Amino acid sequence: MEPAGRKSQYAIPGTMKAWVLDDPEQLRLVQKPVPQPGPAEVLVRIDAVAICGTDVEIITNGLPAWIEGGLPFRKNFTPGHEYMGTVVKLGAGVDEYAIGDRIAVEIHAGCGRCERCRMGMYTSCLNYGQNYGDKNKGHRANGFTTDGGFAEYAVNHVNTLVHVPEKMSDEEATLIVTAGTAMYGLDVLGGLVAGESLVVIGPGPIGLMSVAVGKALGAQPVILTGTREARLKLGARLGADHVINVREEDPIKAVNRLTRGKGVHYVMECSGAPNALSEAMDMVNRGGRICLAAFPKEPALVDLAKLVRNNIYVYGIRGEGKSATHRAAALMAQGRFEARLIHTHTFLLEELPTAFRYFRERIEDAIKVVVKVH
Amino acid sequence: MEPAGRKSQYAIPGTMKAWVLDDPEQLRLVQKPVPQPGPAEVLVRIDAVAICGTDVEIITNGLPAWIEGGLPFRKNFTPGHEYMGTVVKLGAGVDEYAIGDRIAVEIHAGCGRCERCRMGMYTSCLNYGQNYGDKNKGHRANGFTTDGGFAEYAVNHVNTLVHVPEKMSDEEATLIVTAGTAMYGLDVLGGLVAGESLVVIGPGPIGLMSVAVGKALGAQPVILTGTREARLKLGARLGADHVINVREEDPIKAVNRLTRGKGVHYVMECSGAPNALSEAMDMVNRGGRICLAAFPKEPALVDLAKLVRNNIYVYGIRGEGKSATHRAAALMAQGRFEARLIHTHTFLLEELPTAFRYFRERIEDAIKVVVKVH
Amino acid sequence: MEPAGRKSQYAIPGTMKAWVLDDPEQLRLVQKPVPQPGPAEVLVRIDAVAICGTDVEIITNGLPAWIEGGLPFRKNFTPGHEYMGTVVKLGAGVDEYAIGDRIAVEIHAGCGRCERCRMGMYTSCLNYGQNYGDKNKGHRANGFTTDGGFAEYAVNHVNTLVHVPEKMSDEEATLIVTAGTAMYGLDVLGGLVAGESLVVIGPGPIGLMSVAVGKALGAQPVILTGTREARLKLGARLGADHVINVREEDPIKAVNRLTRGKGVHYVMECSGAPNALSEAMDMVNRGGRICLAAFPKEPALVDLAKLVRNNIYVYGIRGEGKSATHRAAALMAQGRFEARLIHTHTFLLEELPTAFRYFRERIEDAIKVVVKVH
Amino acid sequence: MEPAGRKSQYAIPGTMKAWVLDDPEQLRLVQKPVPQPGPAEVLVRIDAVAICGTDVEIITNGLPAWIEGGLPFRKNFTPGHEYMGTVVKLGAGVDEYAIGDRIAVEIHAGCGRCERCRMGMYTSCLNYGQNYGDKNKGHRANGFTTDGGFAEYAVNHVNTLVHVPEKMSDEEATLIVTAGTAMYGLDVLGGLVAGESLVVIGPGPIGLMSVAVGKALGAQPVILTGTREARLKLGARLGADHVINVREEDPIKAVNRLTRGKGVHYVMECSGAPNALSEAMDMVNRGGRICLAAFPKEPALVDLAKLVRNNIYVYGIRGEGKSATHRAAALMAQGRFEARLIHTHTFLLEELPTAFRYFRERIEDAIKVVVKVH
Repeated sequence: MEPAGRKSQYAIPGTMKAWVLDDPEQLRLVQKPVPQPGPAEVLVRIDAVAICGTDVEIITNGLPAWIEGGLPFRKNFTPGHEYMGTVVKLGAGVDEYAIGDRIAVEIHAGCGRCERCRMGMYTSCLNYGQNYGDKNKGHRANGFTTDGGFAEYAVNHVNTLVHVPEKMSDEEATLIVTAGTAMYGLDVLGGLVAGESLVVIGPGPIGLMSVAVGKALGAQPVILTGTREARLKLGARLGADHVINVREEDPIKAVNRLTRGKGVHYVMECSGAPNALSEAMDMVNRGGRICLAAFPKEPALVDLAKLVRNNIYVYGIRGEGKSATHRAAALMAQGRFEARLIHTHTFLLEELPTAFRYFRERIEDAIKVVVKVH
Repeated sequence: MEPAGRKSQYAIPGTMKAWVLDDPEQLRLVQKPVPQPGPAEVLVRIDAVAICGTDVEIITNGLPAWIEGGLPFRKNFTPGHEYMGTVVKLGAGVDEYAIGDRIAVEIHAGCGRCERCRMGMYTSCLNYGQNYGDKNKGHRANGFTTDGGFAEYAVNHVNTLVHVPEKMSDEEATLIVTAGTAMYGLDVLGGLVAGESLVVIGPGPIGLMSVAVGKALGAQPVILTGTREARLKLGARLGADHVINVREEDPIKAVNRLTRGKGVHYVMECSGAPNALSEAMDMVNRGGRICLAAFPKEPALVDLAKLVRNNIYVYGIRGEGKSATHRAAALMAQGRFEARLIHTHTFLLEELPTAFRYFRERIEDAIKVVVKVH
Repeated sequence: MEPAGRKSQYAIPGTMKAWVLDDPEQLRLVQKPVPQPGPAEVLVRIDAVAICGTDVEIITNGLPAWIEGGLPFRKNFTPGHEYMGTVVKLGAGVDEYAIGDRIAVEIHAGCGRCERCRMGMYTSCLNYGQNYGDKNKGHRANGFTTDGGFAEYAVNHVNTLVHVPEKMSDEEATLIVTAGTAMYGLDVLGGLVAGESLVVIGPGPIGLMSVAVGKALGAQPVILTGTREARLKLGARLGADHVINVREEDPIKAVNRLTRGKGVHYVMECSGAPNALSEAMDMVNRGGRICLAAFPKEPALVDLAKLVRNNIYVYGIRGEGKSATHRAAALMAQGRFEARLIHTHTFLLEELPTAFRYFRERIEDAIKVVVKVH
Repeated sequence: MEPAGRKSQYAIPGTMKAWVLDDPEQLRLVQKPVPQPGPAEVLVRIDAVAICGTDVEIITNGLPAWIEGGLPFRKNFTPGHEYMGTVVKLGAGVDEYAIGDRIAVEIHAGCGRCERCRMGMYTSCLNYGQNYGDKNKGHRANGFTTDGGFAEYAVNHVNTLVHVPEKMSDEEATLIVTAGTAMYGLDVLGGLVAGESLVVIGPGPIGLMSVAVGKALGAQPVILTGTREARLKLGARLGADHVINVREEDPIKAVNRLTRGKGVHYVMECSGAPNALSEAMDMVNRGGRICLAAFPKEPALVDLAKLVRNNIYVYGIRGEGKSATHRAAALMAQGRFEARLIHTHTFLLEELPTAFRYFRERIEDAIKVVVKVH
């Protein structure tokens, strides 16, 4: 017997609606051919897709791999990477997922053939962006180097999928990848956070999910710092034991007070503020660890001697490696935290520009703005 | 300018000589089509291939994946996995290796899509052997699940290649994969073995390479146990600080004596003797670690309470994961040990049955018997 | 202001009631001097102490360190290691804990000076039991090598203490060390168990706590196997997704069925059944890991080749290393599972023999039998 | 029979010559009582002690723990931490070392009771410097928080000792702790460096030892960057495959050239130059790792987004944790590299000010300046 809402067959059109980016800020809604899944791939009917800060970066500046590679602005590219949907077609040899399965995605498939992918570090793929021309290495990072989710359909490698339970809404499921990034950050910090103290800097989506995942894994206390009171309150609902409004209290002093001078074991830096690393270095104790999960826009002045003197380790992460998305999805499926609290607005695919405007300008205190596609 | 011995073009015939296995012990020399490299693959002209104990197992019993899966004896299969050769053709998108490159191989490519491969544990591929039929997952382990090296040519995924330096002979290069297994064993034991004590049980090829790699990494003392004096002497030349002939001295007492009652940090079990794990458990100290790199033919009686009481960890390994072959090849290229000492005999491809006879019956104290193909 | 129930001063008598073991099964209640805390130590007024299976072993056979060392039965020794209480006196230099603090304990202080302690593996202390005579290395493992908790007072190194929150009962707090062992087992298995599958063999106290801690960390599914229906039901209340009564269903087949043929990632072996490791080896998938946390009384026949073929790792653990007790206590303080469900009976210190009888004979289905001291 | 040069009894005077620091730059040679070893300690007759850059820092600015703690300049303190000598007296319970043993030292004993020491991270001791007054935690870091080696005798915890082989000179043995720091840096970078590429920035003593240890463990290529030709030549003799004089070639471009655009796996930053981290970030590949082993004197401008984008990890280390000194000593005892090449000058204890002058002003291109005490 088939679960409600599952079908063994889906009618798949030849073309689809998709937003494409031609030049900075030039998003257009077009008809594109529906892509075909190859071996180890599936076709996903996109049901919902959330907007992330890096989508804004891409729309403003172009794709990171092309910018870093000094290439011209890529045309006809479909961004969008925080999506979920339904498996509607299987590539050759696929039985890991079935037609009708609801799935969420992680971004990085990697190339599967470089040294980093070979060792399981696929977010550090050495062939990042190499998926074209003579030296096509088959790298995929949907929404970054291959077409993404602001469209009706997308192709995904089975490696990048995770099951979504029946009871979870489409909107909530788009947050799995965000929670996966938070989970990965905690992994690289050591993973065994029960009873350990954690500061999260910055109550954006990744920061709020870091609070939630950290608390779900038993971190104690979880301290969230930020500037906006509404966000901090949300952090408290998601599991923060203490919130610090840095407009009212110096966060370093506050952490010092809350930990009785000991400092914390871990800091997740999710704000992208240039001084955040320096701040974090004054919050952790000797041997403490800091994860950088956000991109400061300008270089920062850092007292490196302090890292040396206090045996501090700093981990840059780009996204959600080591299958952290699976672990995050499991916690969400078990109802360990209410990820849906950070979802604030929903629009239709045709309304993407409006959705972006709400996200960028934080209209009505928008946090996660979701585009409902099907 | 091109290095001596390199060509940019090789004439590749349509068919090749290859040994195939039809039924137990039924090796036949046939003409087979030369295989074609796909994306991320190269065609290797096999220059030399060594015989391993598992080749004998395969010829006697069939392929492990088929036996474990309860499948009938696979026909027309070419075994052989310890080979080296020359890259003569590149699949689409390959620039990691060039035509004319001398390379050695590791066995496991994995499937690249299961959970274990995704985390870098490709020797534990969950799709082991799944490379046929409707559910072809693309698993490759040349000589085990895909055609191997007792032939003139083979196809290899770029993941499984390692460069061979000009000055290393073909025969020595066939030993890279054996050294890679030893290296991987030391990796799983912790890797940082300089100044730590190591017992190697069993002076077969993997045991002897474990002595050599362990010593190259600074293990101290390295103690080798075995029954055959000639092998033990070889072990001493490869770096063993002490050798113990178990026919003359109880190895547990000897280790106790040599370590002044402390026991050792690590044991590499390379003998396949059923009692070897129990012996190893009496050789390591509290918190010590044991790697099982050989396959006992029958179940063994083990005092499991001792593992618990002494916090001992036991690691089974199948082959040479985590790119250990690259690290082993680097040590060999730097001349850190004389792997060639374990190479004893050379035959031509047509003489494979004789080569196997020398290996199986240890004629003239054969250790590594190499078949020179080109 | 001082929290309710805390005092800055406690009247400490010169002598105390303590059970001592002179010969096998010869427990006597005596008056002993109250011990004095040295530097880095505190005096604990024992409030409650639970009975563990190893207490029974000690009373029957003597102290493991003395048996293993071939020493005569130690006289006048006070066993008991699963205790909690109140800090009533501080050794020199102690400010990590204050007089009046409620604390639970872990067993192993280690010696702090051997190679294993130096690397953080204090449960593998190479000076285990060396705390007497000319070569006193200062090893402490209360209830095993130094006086334990079946008494009114005990001395503990600050390393072995963990705070007990006000709202947790004395009885529940005695279970912290049991939960700590479960936590440590999951740590050595990799720690990142959210969304990973876990079998727990044996619904004794450690097994039940492994279910609870595994589930609290997000393992999915958690499968518990055992023979007693009441215990299995308790396991389900503590978080097991599936329970298997091995009297009714073959556990290997059941695990195979529940995981759709995939097997599980991890097995915690908590039964001490001689065949449990073999069973576990057929439950885990390639690359799976098994923790042995119980002591089989007799050697077991093990197909070691399977460990090698499937890249399985086996970890023996003795107790609760790497400060796992702190992490377990944090989860309990946060109310992540109801450890108190496994507490079934309470007796007074004078009634210790009766308490042991209930525990040994499982009278009224006794699981955790607690002795309330103060 | 006793080895040559060993005695079972040494005449130990009541007082000894020792240099003490009263105020910045105020080193005085005084008579001090010879200290007494406590339990787990030995008395070391200092045979030789080398000068390190941090000795200069201490003499100029005072002890780091006191400066960081805002305490006044500590009087009567004996600095010096890179020493070796002979065990002449044993504290209670010591049998790990015997009278007459030649030993070298590592600096950090830690406190043995804080959370970091408990987990094996004793260089991150949370009680750093707490070895006085009411809250004496027993922390020891000789030459930093407890009396050091510019004296005739010093007390050491057995944890901080490593045997020196007979054939190694006193002068060379003082370099063990420097090599230990290099080894520890490679450990935190991952340890398995055979065949991996390594840049060492800065050919000071730690940089040169990083070259030597990295090469001994099989790193390939090892690239050393610096400004002084003589030092770079020494680096080449110690194992560098390539040296780059940054006065002649941009080091980032050079690394790019030498690695054919790939970048390296690891960078050991040993220069303390403020821009070195930024430089290192442009030398490593995605997923690469950087160890900071030197103290920049001023804050540096760092493009943190690059750490995030490229998944780079940065590890600050203070000294030589995780018993790396033992592993380094083992490599030196096995003659894997000629540490003695970096020893350039020898003075007597009375000549310490001259020795410092040679070191500070690099007179006659001084690198390691050793003071011979006995």
